[in-house]
Amino acid sequence: MAGMSFSSLSALETEIFHYIEAHQSDFIEDLKEWVAVESDSVQPHLRKEVMRMMSLAAARLAVLGATVNSVSLGSQQLLNGQHLPQPPVILGELGKDPKNLTICFYGHVDVQPARREDGWKTNPYTLTEINGNLYGRGATDNKGPVLAWINAVETYRALKIAMPVNFKFVIEGMEEVGSLGLEELLEEKQGFFSDVDYIVISDNLWLSKKKPALIYGTRGNACFSVEVEGGDKDLHSGTFGGIIHEPLTDLIALLDSLVDPTGQIQIPGIYDAVAPLTDEEKKLYESTEYDIEEHKNNSGVKKLLYNTKEEILLHLWHYPSLSIHGIEGAFHEPGIKTVIPAKVIGKFSIRQVPYMELSDVKQQVVNHLENVFAKRNSPNKLKVSMPLGAKPWVTDVNDPLYKAARRAIRTVFGEDPDFIRDGSTIPIARIFQTITQKRVIMFPIGAADDGEHSQNEKISRRNYIEGTKVFAAFFLEISKLRGQSNETSNPGTK
Amino acid sequence: MAGMSFSSLSALETEIFHYIEAHQSDFIEDLKEWVAVESDSVQPHLRKEVMRMMSLAAARLAVLGATVNSVSLGSQQLLNGQHLPQPPVILGELGKDPKNLTICFYGHVDVQPARREDGWKTNPYTLTEINGNLYGRGATDNKGPVLAWINAVETYRALKIAMPVNFKFVIEGMEEVGSLGLEELLEEKQGFFSDVDYIVISDNLWLSKKKPALIYGTRGNACFSVEVEGGDKDLHSGTFGGIIHEPLTDLIALLDSLVDPTGQIQIPGIYDAVAPLTDEEKKLYESTEYDIEEHKNNSGVKKLLYNTKEEILLHLWHYPSLSIHGIEGAFHEPGIKTVIPAKVIGKFSIRQVPYMELSDVKQQVVNHLENVFAKRNSPNKLKVSMPLGAKPWVTDVNDPLYKAARRAIRTVFGEDPDFIRDGSTIPIARIFQTITQKRVIMFPIGAADDGEHSQNEKISRRNYIEGTKVFAAFFLEISKLRGQSNETSNPGTK
Repeated sequence: MAGMSFSSLSALETEIFHYIEAHQSDFIEDLKEWVAVESDSVQPHLRKEVMRMMSLAAARLAVLGATVNSVSLGSQQLLNGQHLPQPPVILGELGKDPKNLTICFYGHVDVQPARREDGWKTNPYTLTEINGNLYGRGATDNKGPVLAWINAVETYRALKIAMPVNFKFVIEGMEEVGSLGLEELLEEKQGFFSDVDYIVISDNLWLSKKKPALIYGTRGNACFSVEVEGGDKDLHSGTFGGIIHEPLTDLIALLDSLVDPTGQIQIPGIYDAVAPLTDEEKKLYESTEYDIEEHKNNSGVKKLLYNTKEEILLHLWHYPSLSIHGIEGAFHEPGIKTVIPAKVIGKFSIRQVPYMELSDVKQQVVNHLENVFAKRNSPNKLKVSMPLGAKPWVTDVNDPLYKAARRAIRTVFGEDPDFIRDGSTIPIARIFQTITQKRVIMFPIGAADDGEHSQNEKISRRNYIEGTKVFAAFFLEISKLRGQSNETSNPGTK
Repeated sequence: MAGMSFSSLSALETEIFHYIEAHQSDFIEDLKEWVAVESDSVQPHLRKEVMRMMSLAAARLAVLGATVNSVSLGSQQLLNGQHLPQPPVILGELGKDPKNLTICFYGHVDVQPARREDGWKTNPYTLTEINGNLYGRGATDNKGPVLAWINAVETYRALKIAMPVNFKFVIEGMEEVGSLGLEELLEEKQGFFSDVDYIVISDNLWLSKKKPALIYGTRGNACFSVEVEGGDKDLHSGTFGGIIHEPLTDLIALLDSLVDPTGQIQIPGIYDAVAPLTDEEKKLYESTEYDIEEHKNNSGVKKLLYNTKEEILLHLWHYPSLSIHGIEGAFHEPGIKTVIPAKVIGKFSIRQVPYMELSDVKQQVVNHLENVFAKRNSPNKLKVSMPLGAKPWVTDVNDPLYKAARRAIRTVFGEDPDFIRDGSTIPIARIFQTITQKRVIMFPIGAADDGEHSQNEKISRRNYIEGTKVFAAFFLEISKLRGQSNETSNPGTK
């Protein structure tokens, strides 16, 4: 992977990059417009805003000249039985030149919940530039990268340069709630992918604040819901405290049985299927540029669980982790309420890794929690469910697709990317690869400190604009792959 | 306590009871008007409704002919630093006949939070009669009993019967948040109590659905707040899960260390100061009429921690209990959010009993949690506080005051009351006794299944109207105590 020399820019690249530089205010204005839509797919009452966002995205693709098909997914049933309409998935096509290779770009335009009072310094739905950073919910996850790709295509159109590749688009609005219905849709629409050569996903972050990266693996995500139900109503802790089995006490004990203070998951058998650590993988970790202090500062915490780069990368990429997210049904407001809640629901998730099977993980969790619960002799009712399960993904870094992306990165950023994995989950990488059998690349443009899912999410102006350039350069690099084999023997995941 | 014969009603009692029967619709209409005010003192945004409720209550006392003094308490500082105005305390006086004894009635007109979607069958702020029950937030805790007392006084006024006693009133609007500021006010206004003979509190429930009770003791309430803080922002569980010490995992372990599955508190030393169990107390438990099945049905749970009446009463009255109420700062909504919360605050409380000292309990809790936390080697910050501490209370059931109440109950209900304690906390019983050195009685009119603090809180029409009669009869019984000693050597609590 070493040994490539810096190439000076071609005239075409120079023209394209100049256009992008000159139009950055327009591109930021577009992002501002998208961020202003509160397209939070988690909270049911905001579903209509997700719908509106899908219409905006479809209209933007139509302006590029793409044909756009908004495919309805029907409705979603919530845990409480309520039905909510699902946003459509946008399938777009631009260019059908048989001499060109075809890249399919995937992105999502829904976002995580955000409220000013959660600790945002700015209104999360008003894109605000401070010291070169563009703050707003969805700025990096994933509205910014989707628009960077669109900007790159727009640049060719505006400059009247022949498109070097054909484009397809898959844009969804349910990623933050597990891409519900997408897998089934992709299976139904396999014809859409028959002439696709490569699939590009740009929904992750670099490992560093400054150095670009390409991603070849992600962890999965098995989300669990643990419900403990006592009587049929909340009770007063004075009138009943001391004589009943309190559901929240049971739930706290169940949640406390999951993970030890060192982060080790306590569920029997959970590590059994974890892939053995190979020497090649170890070497990749050793050579990755990774600044522990920087990552720690990005997290805002004072001390990490591990002190060496290799241990940290192992526990983010190679091993599963378990996080507890919260409890539904208990008192959660400021102040005091001396209540014994009747029904409480704990939420936790396991980021699982190859080759942990979702069905095995679910069974191990259920068995473990039922065992812990049985020992308590509680008359309360326990219900464990896995409302969301996404598989992990890993691919081959020696593919020409990765090489093309690496060259585009060298052209724009002047250095090679790191080849990294991501501890978080983009279920559709694995889904796309399995269903289409096409090569998939994860090509992030956001930096490590962008704070996706967090307060004060941002993308820097540099990353947004250089990211637009890198995508534009990538189109040219892909066009150079014409005539090379576009079949892999095996995409490499199970 | 046995051996009293049923007395037939006097002409005066007959006239009074007839009036109350005939005006029950008016009394229910008054309760409906009070329940309609969302005087929730827990949620800051409803504080103005508490204020409005205080004005209504003051106006109602003025109509009785009472002189009313609304004493301002200034403002309350919330945990988040916000300042909220405190509702005033109403001090009312009606009658100053030096030949009469003076009863001071205490009640509160603030309520616990209630929302239809918590599981109410009716709008919690619209008093609704179904099968003889009046459903609404505050119906039994404590607007109904306050109005029953006012109705009883009103009856004498309407019938132009000379008041058999002088009245004083203390009505507050902060009981549900621990009667903040009341203790200091009572100390300042000791002069108000100089001519008071007895203090009546009607803010508890009978032990049974049908059989009246008088209460001679309550548990205290030490409310704790356990804050665990990691970094300065919430994090994505994919990007950071597995390499950081998650604050919520720490908090869950801390909460799980508090109480075992049998309800036994695990904090070292916590039982050291619990009063020894005397034979007299044991006998009182044995003779108390208590239907385990009924109490279990009222709770809505399938199985209690104990199977005998004596064990249950011991654990509600004689021993402390610990309940966990919930967690602030974590994800609490329906659905999924794969967040690692940065700062979480667990809420729990201990109902402590004589002779546990609040300062000792606090120190034991702090020591215990700090020890558990230290063993975890977590870099997160732990902060334990006790935002509310109310002491337990117990008094002498052989006092003439209790005998007078027992006679009034026999007159109206035709049977002797049970002499019981209450597992819950009425801090002002202990406060009134300590500050005024007057005898205090807890004289409930609500039934065991009234659901205070719960969904579908109610008072039955029977309890509300017979409760009004019992208070009216009690005034006559108190007037018969004139000439008897109204000093006790020692009210009996520490």
